[in-house]
Parts: sequence; structure tokens; C-alpha cells
Amino acid sequence: MIPEETKELLLHNRANEACTDCVCKTDLQNRNSLIVSQAVNRGIFTANLSPATKRISMMLGEEDEPQTPQLFTELDELILDNKKQLQWKETARWIKFEEKIEERAERWSKPHVTTLPLHSLFELRTCIERGTLLFDLEANNFKEILEIIVNNEIPTGNQKSVLKEKVMHVLLRTHKHHIKTSRMQTMLDLLRGASYANKSASLNSNTTADFTNEISDKPLQEQLKNKFKKQIPEGAEAANVLVGEVNFLEKPFVAFVRLKQAMVLGALTEVPLPTRFLFILLGPKTKTTAYHHIGRAVATLLTDELFHIVAFKAKLREDLLAGIDEFLDEVTVLPPGKWDPTLRIAPPKILPSPHKRKSMYSLGSKVHMYKGNHIQHEERYGSNLHVAEDLKRTGKLFGGLVNDIKRKAPWFASDFYDALNLQCLSAVLFIYLASVTNAITFGGILGDATDNMQGVLESFLGTAIAGTIFCLFAGQPLTVLGSTGPVLVFERLLYNISSDYQLDYLEFRLWIGIWTAFFCLVLVATDASYLIQYFTRFTEEGFCTLISFIFIHDAFQKMFNLAKNYPINSDFNIDHVTLEHCLCLPSETKNVSSLFNETTETHFKLNTATYNTTPNIESVNWPALTKQDCLKHGGQLVGKTCDYIPDITLISFILFFGTFVCSMSLKNFKTSRYFPFSVRKLISDFSIILSILIFCGVDILIGVDTPKLIVPSELKPTNPHRGWFVYPFGGNEWWMCLIAIAPALLVTILIFMDQQITALILNRKEHKLKKGAGFHLDLFWIAIIMILTSFMGLPWYVSTTVISLAHIDSLKMETAKSAPGVEPTFMGVREQRVTGLLVFILIGVSLCLAPILKYIPLPVLFGIFLYMGMSALSSVQFMDRLKLLLTPAKHQPDLIYLRHVPLRRVHLFTLLQILCLVLLWVLKSTVAAIIFPVMLLALVWVRKAMECIFSKHDLSWLDDTMPEKENKVLEDKKAEKAASNNECEDSEYLYLQKGCDINISVN
Amino acid sequence: MIPEETKELLLHNRANEACTDCVCKTDLQNRNSLIVSQAVNRGIFTANLSPATKRISMMLGEEDEPQTPQLFTELDELILDNKKQLQWKETARWIKFEEKIEERAERWSKPHVTTLPLHSLFELRTCIERGTLLFDLEANNFKEILEIIVNNEIPTGNQKSVLKEKVMHVLLRTHKHHIKTSRMQTMLDLLRGASYANKSASLNSNTTADFTNEISDKPLQEQLKNKFKKQIPEGAEAANVLVGEVNFLEKPFVAFVRLKQAMVLGALTEVPLPTRFLFILLGPKTKTTAYHHIGRAVATLLTDELFHIVAFKAKLREDLLAGIDEFLDEVTVLPPGKWDPTLRIAPPKILPSPHKRKSMYSLGSKVHMYKGNHIQHEERYGSNLHVAEDLKRTGKLFGGLVNDIKRKAPWFASDFYDALNLQCLSAVLFIYLASVTNAITFGGILGDATDNMQGVLESFLGTAIAGTIFCLFAGQPLTVLGSTGPVLVFERLLYNISSDYQLDYLEFRLWIGIWTAFFCLVLVATDASYLIQYFTRFTEEGFCTLISFIFIHDAFQKMFNLAKNYPINSDFNIDHVTLEHCLCLPSETKNVSSLFNETTETHFKLNTATYNTTPNIESVNWPALTKQDCLKHGGQLVGKTCDYIPDITLISFILFFGTFVCSMSLKNFKTSRYFPFSVRKLISDFSIILSILIFCGVDILIGVDTPKLIVPSELKPTNPHRGWFVYPFGGNEWWMCLIAIAPALLVTILIFMDQQITALILNRKEHKLKKGAGFHLDLFWIAIIMILTSFMGLPWYVSTTVISLAHIDSLKMETAKSAPGVEPTFMGVREQRVTGLLVFILIGVSLCLAPILKYIPLPVLFGIFLYMGMSALSSVQFMDRLKLLLTPAKHQPDLIYLRHVPLRRVHLFTLLQILCLVLLWVLKSTVAAIIFPVMLLALVWVRKAMECIFSKHDLSWLDDTMPEKENKVLEDKKAEKAASNNECEDSEYLYLQKGCDINISVN
Repeated sequence: MIPEETKELLLHNRANEACTDCVCKTDLQNRNSLIVSQAVNRGIFTANLSPATKRISMMLGEEDEPQTPQLFTELDELILDNKKQLQWKETARWIKFEEKIEERAERWSKPHVTTLPLHSLFELRTCIERGTLLFDLEANNFKEILEIIVNNEIPTGNQKSVLKEKVMHVLLRTHKHHIKTSRMQTMLDLLRGASYANKSASLNSNTTADFTNEISDKPLQEQLKNKFKKQIPEGAEAANVLVGEVNFLEKPFVAFVRLKQAMVLGALTEVPLPTRFLFILLGPKTKTTAYHHIGRAVATLLTDELFHIVAFKAKLREDLLAGIDEFLDEVTVLPPGKWDPTLRIAPPKILPSPHKRKSMYSLGSKVHMYKGNHIQHEERYGSNLHVAEDLKRTGKLFGGLVNDIKRKAPWFASDFYDALNLQCLSAVLFIYLASVTNAITFGGILGDATDNMQGVLESFLGTAIAGTIFCLFAGQPLTVLGSTGPVLVFERLLYNISSDYQLDYLEFRLWIGIWTAFFCLVLVATDASYLIQYFTRFTEEGFCTLISFIFIHDAFQKMFNLAKNYPINSDFNIDHVTLEHCLCLPSETKNVSSLFNETTETHFKLNTATYNTTPNIESVNWPALTKQDCLKHGGQLVGKTCDYIPDITLISFILFFGTFVCSMSLKNFKTSRYFPFSVRKLISDFSIILSILIFCGVDILIGVDTPKLIVPSELKPTNPHRGWFVYPFGGNEWWMCLIAIAPALLVTILIFMDQQITALILNRKEHKLKKGAGFHLDLFWIAIIMILTSFMGLPWYVSTTVISLAHIDSLKMETAKSAPGVEPTFMGVREQRVTGLLVFILIGVSLCLAPILKYIPLPVLFGIFLYMGMSALSSVQFMDRLKLLLTPAKHQPDLIYLRHVPLRRVHLFTLLQILCLVLLWVLKSTVAAIIFPVMLLALVWVRKAMECIFSKHDLSWLDDTMPEKENKVLEDKKAEKAASNNECEDSEYLYLQKGCDINISVN
Repeated sequence: MIPEETKELLLHNRANEACTDCVCKTDLQNRNSLIVSQAVNRGIFTANLSPATKRISMMLGEEDEPQTPQLFTELDELILDNKKQLQWKETARWIKFEEKIEERAERWSKPHVTTLPLHSLFELRTCIERGTLLFDLEANNFKEILEIIVNNEIPTGNQKSVLKEKVMHVLLRTHKHHIKTSRMQTMLDLLRGASYANKSASLNSNTTADFTNEISDKPLQEQLKNKFKKQIPEGAEAANVLVGEVNFLEKPFVAFVRLKQAMVLGALTEVPLPTRFLFILLGPKTKTTAYHHIGRAVATLLTDELFHIVAFKAKLREDLLAGIDEFLDEVTVLPPGKWDPTLRIAPPKILPSPHKRKSMYSLGSKVHMYKGNHIQHEERYGSNLHVAEDLKRTGKLFGGLVNDIKRKAPWFASDFYDALNLQCLSAVLFIYLASVTNAITFGGILGDATDNMQGVLESFLGTAIAGTIFCLFAGQPLTVLGSTGPVLVFERLLYNISSDYQLDYLEFRLWIGIWTAFFCLVLVATDASYLIQYFTRFTEEGFCTLISFIFIHDAFQKMFNLAKNYPINSDFNIDHVTLEHCLCLPSETKNVSSLFNETTETHFKLNTATYNTTPNIESVNWPALTKQDCLKHGGQLVGKTCDYIPDITLISFILFFGTFVCSMSLKNFKTSRYFPFSVRKLISDFSIILSILIFCGVDILIGVDTPKLIVPSELKPTNPHRGWFVYPFGGNEWWMCLIAIAPALLVTILIFMDQQITALILNRKEHKLKKGAGFHLDLFWIAIIMILTSFMGLPWYVSTTVISLAHIDSLKMETAKSAPGVEPTFMGVREQRVTGLLVFILIGVSLCLAPILKYIPLPVLFGIFLYMGMSALSSVQFMDRLKLLLTPAKHQPDLIYLRHVPLRRVHLFTLLQILCLVLLWVLKSTVAAIIFPVMLLALVWVRKAMECIFSKHDLSWLDDTMPEKENKVLEDKKAEKAASNNECEDSEYLYLQKGCDINISVN
């Protein structure tokens, strides 16, 4: 079935120059048959490596050579400008992704993945095969290069010299670039715009040197000033692709040039980079956009990580062809009827790693990309493995602590000089504001819960002292100490019990603190921190969800209590305003009129007897007394309006919901599209403080006397009945200090869980911390600080997840320059002690903020509280699964665990989790409330029991398994993997997502 | 450079059967060289059509044959089941897009675009080239087919017969399908899940016949019940792709079969469809997933619209190969390093039309898809062109009206029997509720604006009467009449003027109505509706934005007025409650104490004189009087609390913002992911009525005496001072009926703009209306109804854009069955008069709702008002452009006009629009307010003036040009198109978007 024609052609000799066209065709067809045979060679029919693969493997194998510079590729096409003069116009450019000119809009498009017609790649292959290839060309300037090319491509001859001149003329025309002007310039243009009217379209072409149409020898002024340069990686070189249609050529003129030394070729490139590659394609007019696409194809190839190396190292035509063949072999194909080829594809979040592709070649036996793409297990499950090393049991007393100190001590000096960066200053400001907000909010709520035994002032002082100590000496100085939800919940319970049993709260608490510190030290001594390896996502989420619910519940409860204290008169009738009063009358009248109904008459008489002792009862001017005075004088309040307080409840609810909605939406403002990123980040970062300020303003504006935060105006305890030192004996019976052991055990569980889960998250591998963790050392200092704060009657402190993460976030180092469409790479965190230290010193200084703080209405704080509960909930995967229960299968997001676990198993897991939480909540609401830390710990066992119901496979997707067992599961997984080929077809991106979305944020 | 090996191979003869492998290889390479040469043939080097293209053109050219049925393709792969037995397992399926089994999750993935390695397509080509091809095979059952194939593929021989048996054995194994169970079943499984524990994984395989491992002759029960059948198009046939690895084969076993008669092959296919195609690929074990991808490749090919026809019509091996080659030629390629091939691509919103692809072949000269994709100009600009026909000037008096009647009369009967569908019933309910809400809201606001001269009751009555008449006789019965913003704004102005000049409002309004109706009839007579062609988006948006701003402004103004009427006592001190009273004292005391300050003393004395006439002034029990009585008796209110009214303002604001936020979020609930679509649509559709109900509930719950809607409890005018008939004379001077001409002109402009812009939108081409429009007829009836309502003192009515669009939306007909991932096609609208008629009759009936309506607090209505203004704004492109001013270029959405117009021109256009609106607003706030309709009309001229500043090109993107001029612009555009090749590279989808997003929703 081989067409006769082809056969014949194949027998033709290349020397037969008279029939150029035929020869080319023959040559071409043989070449291309090569690609296909190569492709098939590695397929199902035979298993040998193709010659192209071998060639590329050899080229990539030469590892000793210096790294090839990155390329900036620019596609210039030949056009006729307004004055009907020939001109080159830049139409697209590549660093990693394609950006094209949107001509009418006079702007660069968004970076997008290049989509090519397969066609154009084949045509490009033919071009490379037939055209002039010049490797390591040496020349002094653009004109010289062109002359060499033209002499090479067009053989000498009388008629040909005219052709040569024409080609040279075309190639030397000016290049028009679209250079983005600054915003300022745009605004000026805009203002001028109205007068210039339709002329504007021609404005841009005027900017290039217009008096001569020949390309300038030197880069133009505007090119030197081009701001796009910042986005091009350091040391990058340029590749210029010139394609165009001319009417004087009969067959395509193709040249691919690599210069020996990269050099700036005058005004050729948009940004004056040294040019390394030059691809020129001129040809007769065609009906299609073939030239455009061939130009894009060569640019795409040069942008490819592998071909790029091939292009740098190529010595023969075959090298380049092998590069194209290998590229073709890895290409992904979209079927024509199912995909509109003109749709632009946004750069994907995650790309196949170029190293993986390279390693396929260096391993010798090339596995196809579609197969070789399964994910390294460590990558997926590794987030805890790294930490596990720091958490090994030493078996010696205080062995872990000693190790921690040994590990951290050498870094101590660098912990200070590493802070010499401007970024640290902004981090200080940001973390300071976050910590202050935290101190105000928790201080306010704690004051409310403990009758101001611990108020805002104590909160400030405690935070300052505890934070400063911790930042100076702890194992992980990036941790930010602060009040957290669990401790707050416990303190509230403790205060209620203390007042129920009439205990001295602070003294009892002191003993609990001492015992807790002792237990913590025992935990440090026994290296017990290794136990945190048994905390899985299930435990973390149970912990977090419960605390969040308590926050939300408390916020509403506080508001309803407030509504009860300030009742609304719903029967109020404007017309009856003259009839309803609240009068203070002497109690005698009460005796006469209404007291017969009173059941406790005798009791009342006793009371009146007491009142009667107050002197001059008759002389009191009853109607002129205030409510408080009236009650003091034993008067009684008569009238409908006495029981009601107008406006306050309603304004409180307005402030409450207003603050909540405001902080929520300011937080989400970060993801909006308006304003530059820096502005949005600023607003989002300061969302809480901003909403507090806004609603304090609203409160002042309306002027209603809402309940306010109680802050003493000088540096003394909020509650006047306490001092700055708590005496260990005197208030309670002596044996209370032994009873304190029981609650101390509970607090120990709480502190341990809260502190270590946060530490675990902070020290995750993805933060790329270099100075190591210090789990034992951290806990040691938490214990020491606890003793101190207990004696001073200050709140207890542990690490706050959210602020600590924000701290790390604000200290992240990233690669500065990045090509359009490429996300900057994360380099690590500035690990130092200075930012933390400064933050806490500043908090100490802000103790004098007290006079301002008393303007904050309590409902605003409750609103922030609600916000905290809600935002902590939203970061929990459990909530996502809860939403899945309500989402029809069709609309469910393509979550990775849904791809691997049947929906009904996911639902069952969620339902069991709900059950656990409901049980916890019910227990918490009963008398057993105080033991809730134990119940939290019980979640670990519940999780263990679940292993009987769920397969290991399911749990590995729904819950992060513990590092110690990891290895076993790893084995299982590998066996499974081998069994089913399809599993490896998920994108890496989805796996990465899995690792990152755990976020136990209680605060 | 041709490798010697290849040369030699090419000279081999096919007859040399001893070297099968070599031969195949040779053959293959020649074939493949064909593809490439074809690809190049159409490229830049030569311009001839390739033989493959010619072949395909011929095949597609046979147009007389019946249409080929659609295909359902299923990919089954060979696996070992739990019991280590061989089994075929369905792993993916195609109707239009690919769905794959997520094995562990036991579910089908979301439909996605198939991405293939280019590799696999080449391998498939080899398979087709070497394997057995059987076209139009006749056989009775699956076994017979297999026998024919095996005999054909494996030559007879002693050793071979064992091989045959083995192959037959493998091919006859059972096929396991994943059949989705109902939700009920899933729940049951879930409940059982806990006890079944890990067994669940094996549950599914039990469902297939387990006792015998051989494929069943008849479809299984579960296959017959499979609900997926509903998604497969009627008359579809199946294509079964079977691929697998076996250890006894040394070279691949390939067969492609087309059956003469499609028939159900036992339990082979997931859904018992008749099988037409069968592709079998068995081969030796390989390291790669090659077989899987080849299977996917053949399935993708069969799903392709063009290859599908080729496969049906193919008579020779070459036909199929040509089909593959053409497919390859149209393929889109994604570069390897820039795209992760495992990412699943969601089906795009719009696909390249298969007709376009087919027509490329039928035209003979094939243009490449990348080039041939530019959009038909009519498609983009056509939305108004279609309407233009109905709007042609006849030049005769009432010519347009007569034409309209002639056009609509033949449909009149069908307008009733076309309504016989259940869909109409739900449409009635939905539109009824929307109209009632509209009537309540506008009635309430109108009552508030006109001192209840027109209240809710009038609104109901008027809507019922006007709507019924209009639906019976109008040109476009899908239009829903209702109160609209512009008319409301005018009525308010009119009432204010009437009370300022002490005119009889209703009588003056009657004359305005009569004159307006007269002017409208003149407009009808002169076919003036053709003028609406001059309304561009600029005019529409100006109109809409201004009205929206008025709505928003009014809502807030009302609320602030309310706050002024019910002042809050911000000095209130709980403690002073006993000291502050409001007492009613006789006025004499006032005279003494404070009245000396009064400036209008004489005036006061006159008043007291009047009061003194009331008898027994001394005998009045002053303290027992209510506020109103006190003032009536001439008493005075003394005390601080008299001036303040607690709670009402605050609760009003809570209700106001609450209603607004609630209706906004309920409306947006439609796009959330939770709950099935029907539930979400229901909630979203009834968002306004739901939020009114919710906040009426809140109001009742709190019980504060908020201002309520005033509705008479029986069928009488809301304001007791008016009747049901307005007399044309008597109230005002006689010449007022002449003065009414001036405002009538303004109303005419308003009515004309409001009515016709809505009509224009309703009659757009994209609604596929078949019975034609009736612009003149509609306006005629609007005029008649206006006379009627003016005489009865009812509000004036025009078409409401939003409700009318909702009406059309609820009557849309769509293709029912659709393949996964494919959007259903819109077929047209049920055009009839019954739904509208029923809606308005129901509104008439609901006049007895009055007793319920008076529970609606006014602030709730103001909230709805704010919502209406906001949501109308959000649908305007002007707002998008306003946001662009705030959005940094990087984050700007990829809007089509931004691709074609420079950003600064867009900004300039926006700024000019802002300027116009500011001017309009300023004018509106001055005395000139009443002439705002003229100012709106002036926007048409402003738009005209803009043509001096902006180029036609820019305006064509920023503003829709007028249909009449369309043709000119069209010419210009075509010329431009030809000039720049790049322009045609935008996706069609973006263009379609442009046409649809104009939405003038005032209500």
C-alpha cells in the first residue's frame, strides 16, 4: 500500500539540486517517519529506546557543565505599519508562559499556557530540518549575523543577489515593541485622550525611531527603562523569533542561529538582554496563519526545560531534531471537537517538576510521563515525619530537653543578627497589633467571666512578661504566646466553681498553677512530648471544633444575658408616654398598696426594720432620688418604665452583628480583586482592629450608654480587692492545695495539647525551618512562666496557633523576581528572636493604653469572639465534610479524599465525628463540665476504635495517620499502588492540597 | 541521513510473512510518514490538499445518507478480581466527555475533556493499520463475533489453536460495571456500613453474576434498571473498547469491528444499548499504561463528531486511517513542562461547532481550524438585527399597528392551547408571587410618597386590571405589567408639586394620564417605535443607573426620616430613670414658665383662645391624658422623655439592613453548592417574599411598635378622602388640563423608554421567539390602560424587565436528555397568554390579603427597596467598568472589551459616563427635577457626541451600536478583520458573553 510516489522519492539523491522542492519533501518525509517510529518503538510493539531518546539522554547526562541561563523569548512578526512601511512587531513573549499582545487594547494579555496546533510543530520540524543551522556563531553585530545567515541560506548567483538584498532589507526593519508605560503616564494619556481623539492608535508607533526605518544599533531609551526587566530572572538571555510573509520569496527562508557569545543586538529585543538564539522564518504569502504558529512553536520549544538544554548543547542538526521528537513524545493532546483551541488556559497551580522529567532520561530507561507521574509517598505524608526526629524518646531523664538546648544553643547569636532586615520591622508592627487585639479580647472576656479578677490590664501585663521570657529562651522563638480558647473555657469553669463553693479563686488557682507546672516538668523530664505523634487530624479537629462551638455559644449567651439585663419595653406606646413613669416612693406606701401579695412577709419586715435604721427616712426627698439612691434608701420603684431599659439591647445587637460581619468581610477582602495586593493585605491583616475601631466609632456616634470594657485608669489590678501577689495560704483551707492536684491534671492535659499541637503545626516541613524545633524546651518554659503568672494572678499562656502562623507568614522569604504566570518560590523563614521580643516589649509599653480601652463596648468584643469561633471552624476539614452532607454529588468539589474513599464511608466518618462532638457537648453542659480536657483526650481512643470500622486505606485519606505507623501504611500503600495503575492518575496538586489544610486555630 | 535500516525495510515485501514483526514495522512507518507529509502538504511548503483530506471530504460529501446515530463508548480493562479471577472492568465511558471510574471512591468522576498522550494516538494508528478490521460484520451473538475475530486474527495451526482458546476464554469473562445506586440505597448502605466494616469493598463485585465467570447472554437486571440510560441520547448505539494485558501473547492482538446491525451483546455494555463498534486490544505485559491510553484514544476518536461519521461509512482500512490523520491534524497540543497531563479539564462552556468543522471539508478547500475560527459577524451583533424587521417604518398611519395585528392574530388560538403543559402551572405560581411582591413593595412606597392617595390596595387592583387586559390583547403576552421605578419617581415628584401648589393631585394626574395616552397613540400612529433603535447600551445604562441610585438614595432617606421622627435619647442614664418623666400639664403653666421665649406669641394666643372654647378645661385630669389627648386639650408636654421614642429607630434599622442582607444572600444562594438545584432555585426565586416573611416574624417577635404598612381592611381606597372614580373637573382650575400637557410629555418619554427598552430585551433573538413581537400593539394597549387607570386613580403600568424575563425563563423549553458535561440546548419559549392571564386573575383574587398585609413594617419594605436598587446596579456593565477603575491591571477579569479597547479609553468612557450621571443627579436635586425624563433622553445625544471622541471600533466594543448603522460598521469591521490576523484568536465564548449581559432591571 505504499504509494509509488513516496517510494520513488525515497530513492532520489539529495545531490539532485535542480529539484529542490522534491528533495526537501523526501528528506522531510524520512525525518518525520523517524519521529513516529521512535514513538512506536517505546510502545507496545517493541520496547527498545529510540535513537532520539538515547541522544537526549547522552546530552542531559553531561552534568559537569555549568547551568544554562534562562531564556526570554520574543516573537516578532512582519507587518505593514500605518504608513504602509514594513516593520517588525512584537506579538508575543515567553518566560515560562505565553503573553500575547492584544493589539487593539494595547496591552499584554494575561500569561497563559501555550496551546499549539500539532500541525505547527511538524512544520517547525521540517523548518529545522531544511533551514540553515548555525551553532556557536561569532559575529560583532546584528547586521553581520544577518549577512552570514543570508549568504548561507541563499546560494550566490546573479539573480540571487537581488533576493539577498531584499531579504536583508526586510530583516533590518525597525522592531516595534509594546512597552508598558507607568500608571502615571497612563493617567496623563487618559487626560490627553479626549483631545487627541482617534489619533491615539498611532501614538505608539511614533515612539520608535521614525525618521529612519532601519533598526537602531543601540537599545532605545524606552527599552532601557522598561520595567518588565524586573520580571525576567537574573542572567537570562534572549531568544528572538522573527517570522513573516514576503512576496518576493518562492520558498521559505529558515535559519536557526545560536551565538557563541550572547550579546545585545541593538533595539532588537524588548528588554536589552543579550541575545543567544535567533530563529528567522520568511516565506511566501499563504492563506493560513502558519508562520505565526510556527513562530509560537519554536518559542514554546525554547521555553521548554528540556529542549532549552538541548538547544544550548546541540552540535548537529540531529540533536535539535531529537529534541523536538522528545518534546513531541511528551506532549498532551486535546481532541478537536471537545476543546476550543482559542480558549486561553491559565497557568496551573502546580507544574510537573522539570527534575523529574530530566531524571527520566538520566535513569536511562525512559518511562513515559503519563506513567512516571505518581507521587513520592514521602511528599504526601511527610509533613510529620520531619518533626518526628526532634521528638524521639531519649530514654534519659531530661534527655529531650538537653538535646533541645544542644540543638538550639549554637543558633542563639544568629537569632539576633538574622533579624537585620526591614521585613522584620513590618512583622513586628503586624504581630504587635494582632497580639494587642488578642490581649484586649481575651482580657475583656476573661474579666467578664471572672468578675474582673483577671481583666484587660492583667492580660496586657501577663502577655508582656510571658512573651518576653519565652521569646528569649524558648526552643521555637517564632511561637507567639497568648491567651487561648481552651484555657479561657477552663478559667470560666474554675471561677464558677470557686464562687459556688466560696473558695478564694486566686489562691486555689495558684495551687493549680503550681501543680500544673510540676506535671509539665515531669512531662518534660520523661520526654513525653513524643506522645503528640498520636494526635491525628481527628483529635485536632475534635479539639478545635469543640472550642469553636464554645466560643460561638458563649458569644450568643453573653448577648442574650445582656438582653435580659436591659429588657425592651415591647408594649411601649408613643401615645402613652405621659402615663408611664417610674417613681421612687417610700417603702411604706408599698406596704399599704401591694405588699399583701408578698409571700415572704416576715422576711420583708425584717428588711424594713433594717431600713428603718437609716436616719431621717421621712426627710428624704423621694422623687428626687436616683434609682440607685432610691433602692439604697429603701424606697421602691413604681411604674411600668422601671423594668425596661430602652435602646441598649438593640444597639448592642447592632454592634455585635456589625462587628462580626465587618471583621468577616474585611478579612475576606484579601481575596477580592480591587486595589493592589498590598492594600488588600493591609486591610485584611488589620481586619479585627479596624472593625473594633469602626464600631467603637458607631457606638460613640449614637451615644447610647452601652456596657463598656472595665479598665482601671492606673496600673493596679482591675478588681480592687486583689493585689499583684497571690499568697499561697490564708484564703482557703490548707488541704485545698492538695485537692488542686485534680484540676491541675486537667489543665496539664489542656496546656499540653494546646501547646504541642501548635508547635507541631509551626514546625511542619513546609515551613522549611532550618534551626530545628524545641518541643521539650518550649514546654519547660511554659511551665516556668505558669508558676510566675500564677503567683502574680495573671492569665496562663500557651502558644496561639493563628498569631504564630501569621508571625511565620510575615517573615517568609520568597524569590523576588518571577516570570509572569509563575508563583514565587518559598525560600524559608527568617528565624530569629528579635521580632517576638520587640512585640512583647511594645505590649508592655502599651499598658498606658488603658484610658483608651475603656471606650470599647462589650458587644463589640463579643462580636470579635463570634468571629474567632466562626473563622476557626471554617479552617477545619470536618466542616467541609459536614457541608458535603448537604451537597448533591454533582456539585461536590473534586476533593482528593472523595476520589479515593466512597462517599458513604466519608459520610459515616463525618457522622461518627458529629456523634463524638454531641456527646462532648452534652457532657460539657452537665456537672461534669470541668473534666472536658479528659474527654478531649478520649478522642484519641475513639480514633483508635475507628480502626475497627474503617479500613486503613480509608483512614489514611480521611485522617492523617501517626508518623510512627507511617512506615507500615507506606508499605501497604505501595503494594496497593502496584496493583492498580489508575490510582497514579491524580494530579500532584490535589495531593499537595491535602497536606496543607489542617489548621487548628482556636484563637 | 536516512538510516540504512529504514531504507531496507521500505523495500521489503509484505508477502514475506515469516518476518511479521518487520513487515508491520515497515508498513507502519510508511503510513505514518503519510500523516506527516499530509500535515506538511497543507502547510507553508506546498499548498495541495492531502489524500486523507480528499478522502474525508468525499466521505462527508455523501449527504443523502441518513444521520449516523450517536455513540456511547465504554472502555473495559482486564483485571484480576478479589478471587484472583480474570474479569473485565469498566474503567471509563464517553458520551461527549470522558468519565472515569474512581475505583476506591466507587464513583464516576466528573465529566472532563479527554487529554491524551500524543504517543497513544500514534500507537492506535499502528493498531488500526495492523489489526483485523471487519466492516459490516453479520453475527448472531457475542460469541460468534469473537470467533470470527479470533479466526481472522490468528492464522490456523496446531499451536495456534491453544492460543485461540486462551484468547476466547479471556474475552468471554464477565464484565463488571459500576452502576450508580439510588440515594436511598446509598443511605441504606451507609447504615449497614458500620457493621459490614471492611467487607464493603467487595460488595460491588458480588452484584454481577458470581456463580459463573462467563459473560451472561442477556443484560443483567441491574443493567436494565440503570438510571444512567436517561442521560444517553435517544437511539444511541454502543461502542465497546476492550483492552488488556495477558501473559500468553507475544504480540498484540488487535481487532476493530463494525457490525452490520447494531445489537445488544448480552451483559457487555453498562446500559443495554445495541453495540455497533467493538475494539479489542490484547497484548503482552508492558511496563507502561500503554493499553489503557490506546483504549482511551480509540474511545476519544469514536466520540469525535467527524471520526464518528468516518467510522460509520468506512469501507477500507485507508478510510479509518485517513480519519485518524484528519483528527491528528486538528488536535490541540499542550507543552509538557507547562501543563500537568493528569489535571482534569472541565468541559468548556462553548465548543467549536461540529458543523463548522464538517463544512471545512465540504467546501473542498480545507482551512485549518486555528484559522477558520473567526466569528460570524451576525452572531455577535445580531441580537438587535432580528428585531429591526418588526420595527421598520411603514410610512402609513397606524401601519405598524396593523402589521402587528396581522402578525399576531393567526397565533391567537394557539396562544391558549400552547399553554397545556405542567410547566405553565409552576410558572404561574412563581410569577404570581413575584408580581404580588412587586405590588406590595411599590404599593407601599407609592402610598408613602403620595399620602396614601395610591396605596397597596390600589396597586393590587390596578395590577390585576391592567395585567389582565394586556395579557389578553397585547402583542407580546409574555410581558408582565407592573409598577416600575421611573414611574414611581415621577409620581412622587408630581405629588410633591401638587401639594406645594395645592392642586387636586388625582384630577391633575388624570389629565396627565389622558394626554400621555394621547401622545402614546400618536407615537403608535406614526410608527415611532422604530426610534428605539437609537437607544444604545449607554442610554440604557444611564437610565438604569440613575433610577437605581434614586432607589438607594430614597431607601436611606426614608430611614433617616424615620430616625428623625423617632429620636433616640442618647443621654439616657439607667440610674436617672426615676427623675425623667413626661408629664401632661395644663397650658397655663406653660404660659408662665417658658412661653415668653416664643416669638409668635400672638399666634399662640389665638390658639389658646380656640382651646379655651373646649368646655371644662379645669376639670380635665391632666396627668391621665395620653399624649395625643393632652395636645388636643391644649396641654403641654413637660419632661425630657417626651422628645424621645425608645427602640423604634434601632429596631427599624435592624429590620432594614436585615431584610436587605437576607434578600441579597437568599438571592445568591442559587449559586451556592449546597442542596439540589431545584431547592436552591426555589429559595432564590422566592428570596424577596421569604425575607419579608422572616423580618415580619422578627418584628412580631420583638413586639416593638414599628411603623407599619397602611392597608384598609375592606375594598375601599386606602385614603378615605378619595373614591374609585376621578372626576376630570371640579378640583382644579379648568386651564390645568391644558397645563397637564407639559408633564404628560415627560411621562410619555418615560413610558416610551421604559416600555420599549424592556420589549427590546424580551424580543431578543436569543430567546428564539417564534410568534414575533408587537411593539406598536403593546404601546397601544399601554395607552388604553393608562386612560383607564387614570380615571380610577390607580397607578400607571408598563412592562417590568425583571419579572418579564423571569416569566420567559420559567417557560423555557430545553432538550431533556443530555450527556454528562454537556449543557442542555435551549429550544424556545412556550409563548402563550394563559400564564399571564392566570397570574393577574390571582392578583385580583388576593385583594382579600389586605388584613395580612398590615403586619408588614415599613422598614422591611425600605430594605427590599434598597435591595432592588442594588441588584439593578449590579447587572449594569457600567458598574463593572467602575470596578475596573479600582482593580489593578493584573487582577482585571479577561473581559472581551478589554482585549480590544485600550484600558485608558475604557476608563475615559467610564469617566464620561460618571460625569453624565453626576450632572443628571445634580439637576434632579434642583427645581428642575420634574424634567428628568427629558434629561434621560438627552443621553442619546450625549452618546452621539461621543462619536467625536471615540473611534467606531472602540464604541462598538464599549457600547452596542444601533441596528440601522450596523451594516456600515459591519463593513468596516470586515476590512479590519482582514488586516489583522490575530484578532480572530479570541474564543467564541467571550463574544457570546458580550451579547447577553445587558440587563436593564429597574425593578
